[in-house]
Amino acid sequence: MTESGKPILYSYFRSSCSWRVRIALALKGIDYETVPINLIKDGGQQFSKDFQALNPMKQVPALKIDGITIHQSLAIIEYLEETRPTPRLLPQDPKKRASVRMISDLIAGGIQPLQNLSVLKQVGEEFQLTWAQNAIISGFNALEQILQSTAGTYCVGDEVTMADLCLVPQVANAERFKVDCTPYPTISSINKRLLVLEAFQVTHPCRQPDTPTELRA
Amino acid sequence: MTESGKPILYSYFRSSCSWRVRIALALKGIDYETVPINLIKDGGQQFSKDFQALNPMKQVPALKIDGITIHQSLAIIEYLEETRPTPRLLPQDPKKRASVRMISDLIAGGIQPLQNLSVLKQVGEEFQLTWAQNAIISGFNALEQILQSTAGTYCVGDEVTMADLCLVPQVANAERFKVDCTPYPTISSINKRLLVLEAFQVTHPCRQPDTPTELRA
Repeated sequence: MTESGKPILYSYFRSSCSWRVRIALALKGIDYETVPINLIKDGGQQFSKDFQALNPMKQVPALKIDGITIHQSLAIIEYLEETRPTPRLLPQDPKKRASVRMISDLIAGGIQPLQNLSVLKQVGEEFQLTWAQNAIISGFNALEQILQSTAGTYCVGDEVTMADLCLVPQVANAERFKVDCTPYPTISSINKRLLVLEAFQVTHPCRQPDTPTELRA
Repeated sequence: MTESGKPILYSYFRSSCSWRVRIALALKGIDYETVPINLIKDGGQQFSKDFQALNPMKQVPALKIDGITIHQSLAIIEYLEETRPTPRLLPQDPKKRASVRMISDLIAGGIQPLQNLSVLKQVGEEFQLTWAQNAIISGFNALEQILQSTAGTYCVGDEVTMADLCLVPQVANAERFKVDCTPYPTISSINKRLLVLEAFQVTHPCRQPDTPTELRA
């Protein structure tokens, strides 16, 4: 927390996992300060001693709140949900909650980790794009099918849930890696409906304190 | 559910994600039937049409329960926790719950996806071992540091939690990939204390209905 008692979010404008948390904070109306961690500059600021002390996984996001530091985006969102329950990001019905967590975990555990910066570095420049595309396409093939039975206006029914907080940043990654999203009409139309919501707009990578001028919108 | 109303777990004896769920079911005393999905035989039974209809991600575990099918191991465990709360696998205190989820997500999202079968296939036989070892070592370096501040008898305090259900199968993977665990005394000693518990014993990969005879113990 800052001296003023505000939570501090360690974030990178383009990190899809950071974006998930920014949306949760925005939806719940939680005022916070951003400390940008540039994952590229100086060989990656996440590798600094200071940041490693904060998150030994050397990843963003990390959130300082209520006297603790939490990392892992879904763990952060679940904590916010339990301590700041309004508006809720998990439905009341346990079966629908299971759908939300299933979709969130599919993206956060089954797609994003395979196409994040540190993994792509290991893959080597020549194969990076195909590798990332394969991970996203394989995940989206499954996700499109799952959403056909869970979706209403959004991923699960008609309320914005944690699953939507994972979907939009992942679609942005797909676009960045030039994945053709036409085979995914359900994913695409939910994404479109979410992107117009204020909480998704103000937290967009093109509007962060650390967004480079040439990428601002 | 079977005709007898029992939940059905689609599982593979060696899958670390399936093992997580088997421990949860055992701890909570939930009687279930196992349908083995052999990830190697016939080019991988997870790719069959029937199984894809059940889980489009083509992964185990999947659990049929209460009229729904859930995949993603942590989503399954959270559902079991919400619908069968005793004994609890998440502490009551929200800050401790955050620690449990942070550790679980670190393993389930930050380590396991990088060393699972389908990714190793893409990496190619020559690099598989080093790739898997790197993923585990990088995750365990962080995990060891985190556990030093959260652990009691087990990963978070003195009660068995979801984090422990992730830890033990991941240490088994580390051993399978010949990772030297001496730099991780906290991980190793928690793992040792957990392995003697009945729920971890009966669900062990060497004691499953689909464990090949030569690997049984």
